[in-house]
This record gives sequence, structure tokens and C-alpha cells, in this order.
Amino acid sequence: MSEQLTVTLQEFRERIKQIKGYEEAIALLHWDMRTGAPRKGIASRSEAVGMLSAEAFKLSTSERMGELLEKLEGPASSGELSRIDQKLVEETRKEYDRNQKIPPAMYQEYVVLTSQAESYWEEAKDKGDYAGFEPYLDKIIDFNNRFIDLWGPKATRYDTLLDMYEPDMTTAELDRIFGGLRTKLVPLAAAIADSPHQPDRSFLGQTYSIEAQKQFSLFILQEMGYDFEAGRLDESVHPFATGLNPGDVRITTRYLEDDVTSALFGTIHEGGHALYEQNIMKELLYTTLCTGTSMGIHESQSRFWENVIGRSKPFWERYFADLQKHFPGQLDTDVDSFYRAINVVQPSLIRIEADELTYNLHIIIRYEIEKMIFNEGAKAADLPEIWNLKYKEYLGITPPNNKDGVLQDVHWSGGAFGYFPSYSLGNMYAAQFTNTLENEMPDLWDKVGKGDLLPVKAWLSDKIYKYGRLETPSEIVKRVTGKPLDPSYLVSYLETKYKEIYKL
Amino acid sequence: MSEQLTVTLQEFRERIKQIKGYEEAIALLHWDMRTGAPRKGIASRSEAVGMLSAEAFKLSTSERMGELLEKLEGPASSGELSRIDQKLVEETRKEYDRNQKIPPAMYQEYVVLTSQAESYWEEAKDKGDYAGFEPYLDKIIDFNNRFIDLWGPKATRYDTLLDMYEPDMTTAELDRIFGGLRTKLVPLAAAIADSPHQPDRSFLGQTYSIEAQKQFSLFILQEMGYDFEAGRLDESVHPFATGLNPGDVRITTRYLEDDVTSALFGTIHEGGHALYEQNIMKELLYTTLCTGTSMGIHESQSRFWENVIGRSKPFWERYFADLQKHFPGQLDTDVDSFYRAINVVQPSLIRIEADELTYNLHIIIRYEIEKMIFNEGAKAADLPEIWNLKYKEYLGITPPNNKDGVLQDVHWSGGAFGYFPSYSLGNMYAAQFTNTLENEMPDLWDKVGKGDLLPVKAWLSDKIYKYGRLETPSEIVKRVTGKPLDPSYLVSYLETKYKEIYKL
Repeated sequence: MSEQLTVTLQEFRERIKQIKGYEEAIALLHWDMRTGAPRKGIASRSEAVGMLSAEAFKLSTSERMGELLEKLEGPASSGELSRIDQKLVEETRKEYDRNQKIPPAMYQEYVVLTSQAESYWEEAKDKGDYAGFEPYLDKIIDFNNRFIDLWGPKATRYDTLLDMYEPDMTTAELDRIFGGLRTKLVPLAAAIADSPHQPDRSFLGQTYSIEAQKQFSLFILQEMGYDFEAGRLDESVHPFATGLNPGDVRITTRYLEDDVTSALFGTIHEGGHALYEQNIMKELLYTTLCTGTSMGIHESQSRFWENVIGRSKPFWERYFADLQKHFPGQLDTDVDSFYRAINVVQPSLIRIEADELTYNLHIIIRYEIEKMIFNEGAKAADLPEIWNLKYKEYLGITPPNNKDGVLQDVHWSGGAFGYFPSYSLGNMYAAQFTNTLENEMPDLWDKVGKGDLLPVKAWLSDKIYKYGRLETPSEIVKRVTGKPLDPSYLVSYLETKYKEIYKL
Repeated sequence: MSEQLTVTLQEFRERIKQIKGYEEAIALLHWDMRTGAPRKGIASRSEAVGMLSAEAFKLSTSERMGELLEKLEGPASSGELSRIDQKLVEETRKEYDRNQKIPPAMYQEYVVLTSQAESYWEEAKDKGDYAGFEPYLDKIIDFNNRFIDLWGPKATRYDTLLDMYEPDMTTAELDRIFGGLRTKLVPLAAAIADSPHQPDRSFLGQTYSIEAQKQFSLFILQEMGYDFEAGRLDESVHPFATGLNPGDVRITTRYLEDDVTSALFGTIHEGGHALYEQNIMKELLYTTLCTGTSMGIHESQSRFWENVIGRSKPFWERYFADLQKHFPGQLDTDVDSFYRAINVVQPSLIRIEADELTYNLHIIIRYEIEKMIFNEGAKAADLPEIWNLKYKEYLGITPPNNKDGVLQDVHWSGGAFGYFPSYSLGNMYAAQFTNTLENEMPDLWDKVGKGDLLPVKAWLSDKIYKYGRLETPSEIVKRVTGKPLDPSYLVSYLETKYKEIYKL
């Protein structure tokens, strides 16, 4: 490498490191606002977040960054750069072209708005007061529409937003995939509803110590290989995981006294996200590649751990006795009944508590509403009604209030339109990865049945986690499973699982 | 105001707001590192802190800032600007002239170093392992020596550092003040030691529930008027208060099972700092004047609340019954005995647990050591021995280990050389303010005896807190008490108090 190229690369890497530094600070400020920052400091904190975001944004779109990219793109394409640097140049170029179209002041205003809106959403959700949140939501929608105009609409306006979370995903493709899913899952759900073998859940209707729930959540995280020297578990209204750097990946959960499994599966879910971020290779430290490659792949990991592992029979053959010990006299049943009880398929109101099958209907509802907002001009004021009608149509139930309806998710308050499909994509990726894992680790379920989860974590680290954003979602799926994304793995996984449980 | 001046002022204020935004983010990152950030993320977090500090530093020394200051200094001195803007221009100029002498890369390196060193200090203190901390301390001393060279030594090299925490304070002045204090306090301490009326502390030697200590600490903070919607109480190895903005002023404390008053007085102390920061006038928001004016005035508030109020008899006449209720059967004595027990004068090892009288000797020791480091070239390796010799000389006791000796304080790990004298200055300011408060509020002690503390907070807010950095320490002391700083108030306060307790 020429001396000049070395110097250019060094300057480029310094700038990337600085952007990453801003991202780490912003992530901590967000974590803090959601885990206990005092109410009266929010306005000032939001201004600080806005300022830091604007600075990172300016760096990523600066004239100098453009010059550096131009100097580095030749060497990158001729193979003179390392694989990491080459990818870094590509991704930074993509970001540069995208961000350059947004005026920095507009971006900063948007960040301050969404940062405040998240707190207002929390308040509105608490009180079930949609009207208090509506003006913020309208402003956020309006901003996103202006972003779409600046970036340029793709096949549809909503496609422009989708691409942010799952590169190159389109509404055409999602319509096809979700259509196919629906065709297979609706008859399966109907057969389940008609089955005479409905699991008994009545033994779960007790009051469970929050302290014991916390202890068991911590225990399971430890079993999964979550590194507590590189993370911590806190509480927040809406559970989340945030990777500040691989040495600091935090999880939050939410404990419910009347539900012994809600916080537990929430914790395992966020733990899956966290394992991904904790196990990214050291070589990516201080670069913008040091994070999960897409929301879909991220969700594949959270949902793999939550559902494929956490709701499997072998898992509970190992851990049910431990759970019983945490709640003496309160889980007086056998493993099989417990396993069936935590896998009940039943239409419900809250996405994050839905079963693995109907979960996808919750996602399809949000996907369709987001399409309506951006492709058909639906306004914030319209959403409660649309929401409730769709829940009636797809799940046969109507939310009794907005808290359990349109206000339940944090995503829109943060402007994350186009994110929701990632959850179902995650389910599909997870099923496909599981198929490969079962082939490559024939004693997988024996291991899980013995609580030997670390080899699973090691396999995923080796195949997926360590790469961070070094590969695209489709490259990862192709390399790991030998095939592109194929929804039939999810269908087949769900059919096998529920045919056994419901004796279909 | 001309349109041009308005535009210039607006740009200046925007830059100040940005610097303040960086300071808020950095303060949160520090708070987080000291209250529970995972160990493995520290390296990356320190890099982020270093980067943010460097950016704030660059802003404060930028060419553009220099131009803006030049444009604004004329209007400032001719009275065209508001009082706040005028002061902001003055203070920013001082910072600009000072910071411009330090190369930004050197400053960033220093910030990363001190940010890491604080964590290594915690570890070293835990293990009593001075050798593990020594190389960091040497590096920090070396940096400070280079700063002194760049800033230019004042009357002595150490004077240059002193000025940072207490503007215009000198070693000549401190030698005089501390000399005077010693002359008065040493005979008082001797008389106390010889008194036949030694308070009984034996009833305090029990094990006290940490949860109950926490509850009582929270209760007293509430009584003082600490606003929990604008703050929170956490735990850390070394208690501290940090004002992110007036709506978010956090306190930490440290609970000891075998000492019922350590965390309590620590909390009241930090609570005093917090009241200062919570009650700064809204007009100073988003400016660098929105903080305490000096460490000395800050300490006057923490030590006023901790000692003048918190260790007074009227305070315990009101609150002792409440304390007893928190520890049933564990405080079986009367108020007077308790009051005497918490005011025992006795040489001890740990500064933050020292009585009001010998506390000043702890400060004098640190002050003399810091003078030796910067004026006589003492090295980190020399400090444990110097420390122990001085404790023998001034307090008649020798630390059994470095944990209870030279490693006890966080300050040096953060590079805060020149800070310690502020504590004794704080005691002196506090005694002088108290004298005025007693004159202006003749029923002060009746109020305290009834737990009517909010008028005290209101008086302090009105006289001191609300001004933030709008006035200098000497301006405040002069305005509030009508006189410059006069150490005789402290001497007289201590003499009156201890003559009564020890029946001298």
C-alpha cells in the first residue's frame, strides 16, 4: 500500500471511529432516557441527542468524507484494501449518498422530535391517551414523507423506508412472502382452533414474585452465554437491547406480576439480540460495521433464542425444575403441560406477547398500516380506527383501548417506519438457520435438553455474529444455509411443532 | 441592538449551547461509568468520552470562536449586552485563552487517560494495590506539569492549578488561611481530647439494614427539598453529585452495614451540591454559566447541609425519632446522646468520614502533598510514604494500608489537582453564610427544629443557587455577607459548637 493511501485510509478510519463514538454516546443517552432519567431533564437531554446526531450526520456527509471516499474507491475495487476497509468504504458511500440529500438542520430537528416523542409516547401509553401523542406522530410521519421525497421514492414510497432496515427489500417481495405465509398459516390456525386438544393454561393464573422473575431471567441469560461483564439487565416500559460496543450490550425487560413468562421470554428475546452484538469480531471495533447487519437478521437471533430454543420441549425438560424452584408451589404441573401452555395459539392484542404463529398477523397488520400511511396518505388521526378494524379482521378481536391497541409499540414514536416486517423476516431467517444447525449439529436437541447451550451460541457466533455488518443479510443466509431466504422453512417448522402440540 | 450584533450573538449562543450539549453527554457517560457500566466496555467508552471532550475543546478554541469574541467584547464592555451575555463573553474568553495553549490531540489523550484511570483507581482501591495505579498517576502528574508549562506558571507552579477551581486563589493566601486555621484549631482539638466529657459512641456499633438506610436517605433528601423529578439517587464507590442540567441532577452514595450515619451524611452532602444545581435560574439554561460558580462555593453548600444543618441539635430534635423508626431497637438512646455521638472529634483515616474539625487537617495534608508534587517534583512512587508520614504528623495515626491511605480519594485519578483546598474553603464560606442567614432569619433554628427546611433552601436559592456562574465566588460572598471571605467565622462556629458538646 502506498504511503499516500495509508495516510488517506488512516484519516478515513479516524472519521469512522468518530462517527462510531457519537453513536455510542447517543445510544447511552437513549438507554438512560428509557431506564430512569428524571422527567424534568428530558428537554435538555433531547437537545443534546439532537446536537450529537447532527454532528455525526455532518461528519458522514462532509465534503472531506466525499473526497476520502473518492480516493479510496479505486483501491477498494482493485482489491488493495482489506476486506473490512473495502466494506467500510462501500457502506460509508451508501450512507453518504443517502444522508447528503437531507439538510443537516432538518435532520437535527427530526432527531430532537423523535427523542422527545418517545417520552411522550410512554406517557400517552400509560394514560391510554392517544390524542396526546397524535400531533407528534403526525409530525414524524410528515418528516418521513419529506425524507422519501428527498431520497426519491422507489417502486412505492414505502419501499424507500423498507430498504433502511432490510436492504433491497420491497413491498412487492413482502406482499408475495406475507401472502404465502398467510395462505399456509390461516388454515393451520383454524385447525388449531378446532382441535379438541387445547392446552390448559389455568395453572398459570397466579401472582408471581417479581424478584424471583428477575432472578430466573438472570439465570437463563447466564445459561445462554450472555456476558454480564459486557452488559447488564434493567427495566423499561418497552423491552429493548442496545449495543454500545461489544463490551457493553445492555438489555431491558418488563416484569408483570400476573404473568410468569412475559418478562422471561422478553429477556430471552433481547438476550438473543445481545449475544449477536457481544460476539462481533474485535477487528470491527471502532467501525460502523460493528453492529448487526440488518434488523431482519437481528430479529432472527432474538426470535431464534426466544422461540426455537426458549419455547422448545427439550429446553424446558432441562429448566422447568429450576423454574419451579423459583416459584415454590406455584407451578404444580409437569413439563409437558407447561410446554403446551407456553405454546398456546390464540389471537391476542399485544404483539410482544403473541404466540409464534399469530405473531406474524400482528406484523402483517402493521405492515399494511404503514403502507397506507406512506402510499395512501393515512394520517395519525385515522390510525386507531384502522388499527382496530384490522385487528377485528385478522385476529377477530378489538382492543378495548388504545393502550392495548395502536399505542402498544414504541417504534413509530422513534420514526421507525419500515421496521416491523423485520420481525417476520426474522422468524423466517431463524427457521432456515435452524434447519442448517440441525444438520450440522445432529445432537442439537440433546444438547439443549442438557442445558448445553454454549455450543449453540458458538455456532451462531462463528456463522453469523462475528461478521457484524461485514456481510449483507442475503450473503449471510446464502453462506450459512446454501440458499436464499425461503419462507417454507418457517411454515414447515410451525406445522411440525403445532401438529404435535394440538395432535392434528 | 444592531441586526449584525444580534446575528453574531445568536451564532455565539449556538456555539455555547453546543459546548454545553457536549458537557451534558460527557457528564452522563461519566456517571454511567461510575454507577454500573460493564467493565468490558470501558475502553471503548473512554475513547468516546475523549472524542466528545476533544470536540467541545475544539469548539471553545476555534478560530471562529476567537472572531466572535472579538466582535462581542466591544458591545459587552459598553453595556450593550445583557448581564448574562456579558458574563458569557467574559468567561468564554478566559476559557479560550486558556485552552488555546493546549494542543487538541494532547487534551484528548489526557481525557482518555483520566477517564480510564478512574476505573483503574477503583480497582486498585478495591485491592489496596497502589502499584497498579501508580503508573497512571505518574502520567496524570506529567500531563499536569506540561499544562502548567503551557499555561505559564504563576507565583508557584501549583498556583496555576489552584486557579482552575477557585479563581485567583494562591498558595500564599492558602498558606496564610490554613496557617491561621491550624493555630486556632489545634489548641481546640487538644482541649477536646483532654475533656472528661467524651461522648459515648458505643451504641452505634451495630449492623444496620442497607435498605432502611436507603429509605431514610431518600426521606431526608425529600425534606431538604431535593426534587426527585429532576434527579435520582444511586450507589457508587465514591459518592458524587453531577448536574447534567437543572432538570437532571444526580446523586450517588455508598452504604456501609456497620455505620448508620456514613451514607446518610454522604447523601446530605451530595444533596447540598444537588440543591445548588437544581435551582439555577432558567435563563442560564443551555449556557456554560449553568453550573456552580466554583468548587469552593459548591463545597460550601454540600458542607452547610451536611454539617451546619445535618449535624445540628435542632435537626435531630426533629428527625431522631424518624431515624429510630427506621432501625427498630437499634438506636436506643436520647437525642442529646445521639447528637454528641455524631459530633465526636477524633483523628481518623478517611477524609469523607472525618469530623468537622479534623476534616481541615485532612485537607491541609492533601494541599501540602499537591504542593510537593508540583513545586518540589514529588513522584507517584513517593506518595504513599509522604502520605503516611503526614498522617502521623498531623493526626497522630498511620494508615494500615493504601486503601485507607493514599488511595482513598478519586480526585487524583481524574487529574483534579488543586481541588482539595475547596473543601476547607467551603467550610469557611459556609460558616460565613450561616452567620448572615442567622441574622436575616432569626427563627432559623426553630424552623430547623420543626423540619421546616424549605425556607432555608429558598434563602440559599435566592442568594446563591440561582446565580450559577453569573457571579464570582468573591462577588457572591461580598453581596450575601457584606464582607470578603473571613476564616474567623469558621473558627468561631467550631469553638461555640464544640465548647458546648465537650463542656470546655
